[in-house]
Amino acid sequence: MKPSLPKGVRDFTPEQVARREYIFDIIKGVFNRYGYRPIETPAMENLATLTGKYGEEGDRLLFKVLNNGDYLAKADTDALDARDSSALTSSIARRGLRYDLTVPFARFVVQHRNDLAFPFKRYQIQPVWRADRPQKGRYQEFYQCDVDVIGSDSLMYEAELTRIYDEVFTQLELPVTIRLNNRKILRGIADAAGVSGQFVDMTVAIDKLDKVGEDGVRRELEQRSIGTEAQAIILELLNATQLDDLEAAFAESPDGQEGLREMRQIHRYLDREPLHNTVRFDPTLARGLSYYTGCIFEVTADNVKMGSIGGGGRYADLTGMFGLKDMSGVGVSFGAERIYDVLEELGKFPDQAARPLQALFVAFDEASHLYAYDALQQLRRAGIDADLYPEPAKMKKQMKYADKLGAVHVVVVGSDEVASGRLSVKHMASGEQQQLMVSELIAQLTSNVA
Amino acid sequence: MKPSLPKGVRDFTPEQVARREYIFDIIKGVFNRYGYRPIETPAMENLATLTGKYGEEGDRLLFKVLNNGDYLAKADTDALDARDSSALTSSIARRGLRYDLTVPFARFVVQHRNDLAFPFKRYQIQPVWRADRPQKGRYQEFYQCDVDVIGSDSLMYEAELTRIYDEVFTQLELPVTIRLNNRKILRGIADAAGVSGQFVDMTVAIDKLDKVGEDGVRRELEQRSIGTEAQAIILELLNATQLDDLEAAFAESPDGQEGLREMRQIHRYLDREPLHNTVRFDPTLARGLSYYTGCIFEVTADNVKMGSIGGGGRYADLTGMFGLKDMSGVGVSFGAERIYDVLEELGKFPDQAARPLQALFVAFDEASHLYAYDALQQLRRAGIDADLYPEPAKMKKQMKYADKLGAVHVVVVGSDEVASGRLSVKHMASGEQQQLMVSELIAQLTSNVA
Repeated sequence: MKPSLPKGVRDFTPEQVARREYIFDIIKGVFNRYGYRPIETPAMENLATLTGKYGEEGDRLLFKVLNNGDYLAKADTDALDARDSSALTSSIARRGLRYDLTVPFARFVVQHRNDLAFPFKRYQIQPVWRADRPQKGRYQEFYQCDVDVIGSDSLMYEAELTRIYDEVFTQLELPVTIRLNNRKILRGIADAAGVSGQFVDMTVAIDKLDKVGEDGVRRELEQRSIGTEAQAIILELLNATQLDDLEAAFAESPDGQEGLREMRQIHRYLDREPLHNTVRFDPTLARGLSYYTGCIFEVTADNVKMGSIGGGGRYADLTGMFGLKDMSGVGVSFGAERIYDVLEELGKFPDQAARPLQALFVAFDEASHLYAYDALQQLRRAGIDADLYPEPAKMKKQMKYADKLGAVHVVVVGSDEVASGRLSVKHMASGEQQQLMVSELIAQLTSNVA
Repeated sequence: MKPSLPKGVRDFTPEQVARREYIFDIIKGVFNRYGYRPIETPAMENLATLTGKYGEEGDRLLFKVLNNGDYLAKADTDALDARDSSALTSSIARRGLRYDLTVPFARFVVQHRNDLAFPFKRYQIQPVWRADRPQKGRYQEFYQCDVDVIGSDSLMYEAELTRIYDEVFTQLELPVTIRLNNRKILRGIADAAGVSGQFVDMTVAIDKLDKVGEDGVRRELEQRSIGTEAQAIILELLNATQLDDLEAAFAESPDGQEGLREMRQIHRYLDREPLHNTVRFDPTLARGLSYYTGCIFEVTADNVKMGSIGGGGRYADLTGMFGLKDMSGVGVSFGAERIYDVLEELGKFPDQAARPLQALFVAFDEASHLYAYDALQQLRRAGIDADLYPEPAKMKKQMKYADKLGAVHVVVVGSDEVASGRLSVKHMASGEQQQLMVSELIAQLTSNVA
């Protein structure tokens, strides 16, 4: 039997895991400093929790877990007789796999609300599962990385999440542009153009700007029965780069004015210290408007062609779906899989991110092997990642192992080294060789790592 | 709708996640120093990979994932008509959830064998799923933590894994006893007692010693048609505390002699430096003999009544199930869930393990709020986990928040503090108050954390 994996799921090799952890450790470090705390929820949720939360397509893409035991005994017999898969499912599968981290978060908050301090700040980095058709860069099992605060409408948090983006991508040495908008600004534009009743039509058209350009948006608006005059106003206002540019147009729009006030308040926090990346108001940002009620965020990497690597927004009523009303929250997510791909494409992973073995000892006879074992243990006790080929063997075989392992140094131990106490240390990348006492080797490797 | 979780699965709160990570970070730190590298495999495997690997009960306890789309269209119609759940399953579910980490590891090794350097040393810390009846301390989704080396029969690795146990539990400040045995020693005992042909019967009886005592083992042996004389020899040899005690009895048993040789070789490595915990030869250790072919490990916590918190062994042919022959491996696992419970029961989690917020700022008016925001950002830039109540509010409300959050310090900022630049810092546990400049506060908190 030749083993294989289902389509759309992946193994991660040691190097990949180490690089993924490099990303997650930076993200978690920033989250923790900003007072966000990790939670974890189980992979399996009740299907009743998940169903209906992601639209019709989402329901289709949920992975359902077959009930155990004699599941047909309790199956819907009408659906069975009719061979109706979708009618049958709920009677033979009561659990499903987590589809995102937002719905489990909402459930968590409602279920644990008496034990939580609000505003509750949490992050969550876990895999999710979606039965999407697998294709390059799209998987059926992938990690999401979400950070949210719930139970406050303070705009300090919008500023805080912007700063978190700024700090994480600075540490990753990946220059980005963080774009901000607000649903209420878009409402103001609709009001100004006299199409308040066609808000969704307008935003769906605007959301296509990146793909179809200004003329394309005009056509999209036209198709949605938004007239030429309104089109002109909309497209003019979308060119605004400053909040002040919209002031006059929003004179008659309470929503628009509120949107400007909110954006200014966010900037009041942001302006108190310098940012490392571009943070920019962008009235054309129109994502997620079926759930976001206030600020909207989107992050793209500079100098590289790839979709967004982060995004989020404020939602006035996240937990309403589980009966807990009036809990305003704001959150953003990091597209960890894409961030990995971008860092790889740009060669931005530091060598240490793969956490290579610092030293592999090799020995050629039993006495040298045991001598090397003692030296090895001294390195390990000093906190250095080190190893020893498990038995005396031919030089060529052991060097090939060191190569394949990607060891940074090879430490050769033979009878000469045992006699002198000076080990032959070869730096594999440069080929440079040194004769070092164990203590000198430890000192050198310890300063390398630090 | 009142949200809930399926039986047998759990949420982890921030404090629980932090404490779990405290355990995993210590374990991973030791693994890495010993040259083991992390891999991850997907939650979903092909059912063909999993089925038949865990015995009949295991097959029943596997969680199966329903095929997406119109799964009944390709269902086995005979099984459907007969309402035969177990016959139907394979035609409507081709994937299942990972049941342990060993089978996915074997699959990984076979699938990636051309890219791996052998001996291949890996660790893996991921959840697994089993449809066991949920009960106290037993979950349907739980973490396993495995460390294995495959592709070498060097006994250096048995010693290394023993040392890894020793170091991890020393760092966790949890004294343990690590017991070692060897299948070949048990074969030697069977040979010496003249019951070589009843090896399984003998070891099944021995494995019950803990529960039924010596007399119980005698009865068990009796029921399995092992006579009185053999019983006496077996029980006498089980009392051996030194390898030498078995030397004479194993004179005619090649397996027994090989077992002694292996155990002595392991001790030759172990004896080269002191251990912190009890490591002890125990001929009564007879776990996992349906797969272990050499050394067997078991770890129990001293001073606390709980089953084993770790175990493992050598298996001569791990990847044989996937067609790759003659790959000897040895591995052990850490019972992470139980280790958590033991540490909690003994109060051994350090305060820092829960990673509490170091400082919560509270302010009473808009100007103080912004002043506090600036100070907050200075703390965060210095690497300190800190936060600010999101708006000016009543003292009582903010202190209640600090309490519920478990913040270590509350930093009070009012007009006096803004005027003087000295913040009122209250240590919540002791009630002690100090007046500190921001720089002094940073210096104090930075040294606390380090």
